[in-house]
Amino acid sequence: MTQKKVAIIGAGPSGLAQLRAFQSAAAKGEPIPEIVCFEKQDNWGGLWNYTWRTGLDENGEPVHCSMYRYLWSNGPKEGLEFADYSFEEHFGKQIASYPPRAVLFDYIEGRVNKAGVRDMIRFSTVVRWISYDTGTEKFTVTVHDHSKDTVYSEDFDNVIVASGHFSVPNVPHYPGFESFNGRLLHAHDFRDAREFTDKDILVMGSSYSAEDIGSQCWKYGAKTVTSCYRSAPMGFDWPSNWEEKPALERVDGNTAYFKDGTSKDVDAIILCTGYKHSFNFLPDDLRLKTANRLAAADLYKGVVWVHNPKLFYLGMQDQWFTFNMFDAQAWWVRDAIMGKLAIPEDKAELLADVAEREAREETSDDTKYAIKYQGDYIQELVAETDYPSFDVGGACEAFYQWKKHKAKDIMAFRNNSYRSVITGTMAPVHHTPWKDALDDSMEAYLQNEAETTPAE
Amino acid sequence: MTQKKVAIIGAGPSGLAQLRAFQSAAAKGEPIPEIVCFEKQDNWGGLWNYTWRTGLDENGEPVHCSMYRYLWSNGPKEGLEFADYSFEEHFGKQIASYPPRAVLFDYIEGRVNKAGVRDMIRFSTVVRWISYDTGTEKFTVTVHDHSKDTVYSEDFDNVIVASGHFSVPNVPHYPGFESFNGRLLHAHDFRDAREFTDKDILVMGSSYSAEDIGSQCWKYGAKTVTSCYRSAPMGFDWPSNWEEKPALERVDGNTAYFKDGTSKDVDAIILCTGYKHSFNFLPDDLRLKTANRLAAADLYKGVVWVHNPKLFYLGMQDQWFTFNMFDAQAWWVRDAIMGKLAIPEDKAELLADVAEREAREETSDDTKYAIKYQGDYIQELVAETDYPSFDVGGACEAFYQWKKHKAKDIMAFRNNSYRSVITGTMAPVHHTPWKDALDDSMEAYLQNEAETTPAE
Ligand SMILES: Cc1cc2nc3c(=O)[nH]c(=O)nc-3n(C[C@H](O)[C@H](O)[C@H](O)COP(=O)(O)OP(=O)(O)OC[C@H]3O[C@@H](n4cnc5c(N)ncnc54)[C@H](O)[C@@H]3O)c2cc1C
Ligand SMILES: Cc1cc2nc3c(=O)[nH]c(=O)nc-3n(C[C@H](O)[C@H](O)[C@H](O)COP(=O)(O)OP(=O)(O)OC[C@H]3O[C@@H](n4cnc5c(N)ncnc54)[C@H](O)[C@@H]3O)c2cc1C
Ligand SMILES: NC(=O)c1ccc[n+]([C@@H]2O[C@H](COP(=O)([O-])OP(=O)(O)OC[C@H]3O[C@@H](n4cnc5c(N)ncnc54)[C@H](OP(=O)(O)O)[C@@H]3O)[C@@H](O)[C@H]2O)c1
Ligand SMILES: NC(=O)c1ccc[n+]([C@@H]2O[C@H](COP(=O)([O-])OP(=O)(O)OC[C@H]3O[C@@H](n4cnc5c(N)ncnc54)[C@H](OP(=O)(O)O)[C@@H]3O)[C@@H](O)[C@H]2O)c1
Repeated sequence: MTQKKVAIIGAGPSGLAQLRAFQSAAAKGEPIPEIVCFEKQDNWGGLWNYTWRTGLDENGEPVHCSMYRYLWSNGPKEGLEFADYSFEEHFGKQIASYPPRAVLFDYIEGRVNKAGVRDMIRFSTVVRWISYDTGTEKFTVTVHDHSKDTVYSEDFDNVIVASGHFSVPNVPHYPGFESFNGRLLHAHDFRDAREFTDKDILVMGSSYSAEDIGSQCWKYGAKTVTSCYRSAPMGFDWPSNWEEKPALERVDGNTAYFKDGTSKDVDAIILCTGYKHSFNFLPDDLRLKTANRLAAADLYKGVVWVHNPKLFYLGMQDQWFTFNMFDAQAWWVRDAIMGKLAIPEDKAELLADVAEREAREETSDDTKYAIKYQGDYIQELVAETDYPSFDVGGACEAFYQWKKHKAKDIMAFRNNSYRSVITGTMAPVHHTPWKDALDDSMEAYLQNEAETTPAE
Repeated sequence: MTQKKVAIIGAGPSGLAQLRAFQSAAAKGEPIPEIVCFEKQDNWGGLWNYTWRTGLDENGEPVHCSMYRYLWSNGPKEGLEFADYSFEEHFGKQIASYPPRAVLFDYIEGRVNKAGVRDMIRFSTVVRWISYDTGTEKFTVTVHDHSKDTVYSEDFDNVIVASGHFSVPNVPHYPGFESFNGRLLHAHDFRDAREFTDKDILVMGSSYSAEDIGSQCWKYGAKTVTSCYRSAPMGFDWPSNWEEKPALERVDGNTAYFKDGTSKDVDAIILCTGYKHSFNFLPDDLRLKTANRLAAADLYKGVVWVHNPKLFYLGMQDQWFTFNMFDAQAWWVRDAIMGKLAIPEDKAELLADVAEREAREETSDDTKYAIKYQGDYIQELVAETDYPSFDVGGACEAFYQWKKHKAKDIMAFRNNSYRSVITGTMAPVHHTPWKDALDDSMEAYLQNEAETTPAE
């Protein structure tokens, strides 16, 4: 049998999990397919690869990064730890529970550096188009290599889409946006909270971005924060200069008007209105269309494209769990491609699996239920491969605690610590409360003493 | 002979000129090919179709618009008037010489409304990929129709690329950009000058965007404007709160450091560093790679792709002339496709034409020479088709005057008026000096009295 050829689109946490999965099989002496990972950025890490750029990048491609300066993990690291590469292994010690972006980037990179998979990645190479030939049963992947400014195509037996779904902003229009006299941006283009020091800002949305971008602007000295919700308030016990309002109705000049008849003059409007699953390189019959939910549409086991099971998607679910879920998926996809796991031939079986997951998700809209639902999913996949099994229930527990800590004090939840389910050790309490830790560098975070001089 | 099928990519001024060219032949009873124009926006007008959006649009596509609020034409309208549709025909009177964007949009639209070509355009449809089959001698154009969220392909005998080249920003990196604490943007994302009222802004570059965005911010109350140049200063007699500096070296926090050792604290940096010719829907053998110059690379007669003369490009030159040049090109391309004009079969002849144009452009770097060079080009094309011939020399004269008016008073050049080479009438002097005309609406511009109440 000739060696299979597999394309991975994207070298973010999901694509890197896939590379590590194949490499770990190779390390055990198993013959693996030929792997090519295409990554449009010039480095790996996906969203965690920070850039100051917004809009289009140096190659004229949409900037992938949605992260911003001073971003700290919004969930406990104990909920995402790699089962095959602990924080202690990477940092040589246990570290506090809500690391800033640079620390998590370093951790992600540590594992794949150790695995030695960088050579499998073609950087600065954007996938332009993919087609499937039912005759040859191959995918043709057409890419633009910006390092040489040249386009070429290559054929593959399998394609694994790991291009993320938090990069293409959902940007609604509200009356008056076209003549707003201030700064109007989507969270995707937010970069430095200090731009909003002493400003009155309006944050639209009531989910993670609204909460975190509002909190950060507050931390770096915004004059006031106003947030507004479409469905339900976040309902935290906000600081005195933060007001939560119902839905925006319109903007006139610099004044925002809300559903309750109140208004507020603002310098900036930050649309924290979420992201779209968007795959501009796929034809209709290969392209996933799904809401941002736990049971993503049309994916058997959450990863196999039901309409063509040679195509896989990683990380397309809404995410409580991240890195460890991508791992569970990547190991499963690897084994499916290597023929160690069977995908049912009967499409009805694939569809039934999807329907069952959807129905089960819809049983309850309780948060704890949702966390456990995704934990169960991870456990289900891990049980079918050689990914190191770990205490998923314990990781769920960290999330339950996190929810409680947020409800107690939204500006202090990151000061808590949790127990690793991989090494069993308790994380230290961070040396500086989050709200006072203005320096988000890795050096500052990893030192054992409190910050003596606040940055700037 | 079966009817040819022609694809036009883009419904900006160039694509619309092409539609009008074919329609005018049809109106004379000539059999024209089947025409399909693909336009990714939901309206025509290209750059002139203003949007408040930046980055990615409502469909996740890069926003095309590089124009901004309060933009007025930067050259006299007498330099761009359509020879087949005068300003007087459209507005029912002669109007002042530097119309704001909305006025020019209305003018562009007027001609194509009259021609009745809207049905030929498929809006919200982005061209994803084009390939050429040497066997069938057809182009396969693959598009994404966002109105139905569906992808399809269609075959064409000819493709005319009219997708513009002032939309994909050239964004250089300078040390310290990644940790600048203010607002950092490219001109492409600039929208409302009032955002910068009372701010200290740095404008990078020394060409039209730097000049115009700086001037606008000044007009709408920026505290100070600093501009910096890489090659040569703009050298105008700037207002007292505008300082021109040599090249930027680096940024530290909010401080910009320049080559002459001076520095300046700024709230915002606006990169007016130009645009890239970028065609993310074309393979290597069809893709134009050129500098932004008058003699664009690889285009016979400035429009025929020398490596495959069934492919055409419109408007790819740097532009003194715009609408009337696009017209001259579109009429010529129409006649080439309809077989009324012959394209030499010998590739060497095509290449020689390109080389001659390049050499002639490089003969002098004088501005007047360049304006005349492009005027001559228009005249050359117009002479070969039935596009109404007009006094191109007179249009050049308007540009020469314009250069003088700018040198005399950069904040007042738009108060001058010029004679139409189409109708022979003199434009009225605008009722309000540009620097005092804060309302840029069509209504304000077209009224015959001075503005009584400033906008706001
Ligand atoms: C603002 C923000 C903050 C977040 N914070 C956290 C957090 O604190 N903790 C947490 O666990 N998770 C967080 N997340 C969730 C995040 O989704 C995951 O952590 C993780 O980055 C997802 O990995 P991924 O590989 O699936 O996708 P991504 O990280 O998005 O990576 C996808 C990769 O694919 C590449 N790509 C895309 N299109 C193409 C193409 N056409 N050709 C080639 N390459 C392509 C991209 O360049 C990118 O490198 C956050 C998300 C956002 C938006
Ligand atoms: C800031 C700015 C100010 C300017 N001011 C003036 C001025 O005052 N006077 C003047 O004469 N000129 C001005 N110009 C010059 C301008 O280039 C021309 O006026 C004119 O807009 C060029 O027309 P075009 O049709 O060639 O390109 P564009 O106007 O850029 O139109 C191209 C069209 O192609 C569409 N398109 C692009 N890609 C795709 C795709 N993949 N699929 C489908 N459709 C696609 C776009 O949506 C757009 O509608 C200005 C340019 C800029 C950037
Ligand atoms: N590490 C961190 O600190 C951090 C920070 C930010 C984000 N993230 C991650 O990024 C991901 C995305 O989070 P997100 O908050 O950007 O997206 P999200 O969870 O999808 O939330 C989108 C929000 O926008 C609102 N919305 C959508 N359309 C709207 C409209 N037309 N008008 C008004 N409101 C509208 C939604 O309101 P409804 O509720 O009414 O639908 C919802 O509140 C998550 O995985 C999150 O964990 C992490
Ligand atoms: N209607 C209006 O009022 C209006 C307003 C704005 C623009 N426009 C039009 O828009 C088009 C584009 O004009 P533009 O000014 O954006 O682009 P441009 O004419 O190409 O000028 C680009 C400028 O950026 C500088 N630059 C490029 N790379 C740089 C780098 N790495 N570092 C520093 N400087 C760098 C260039 O410097 P060098 O000189 O050293 O190369 C040049 O000054 C023109 O057709 C113009 O007429 C019209």
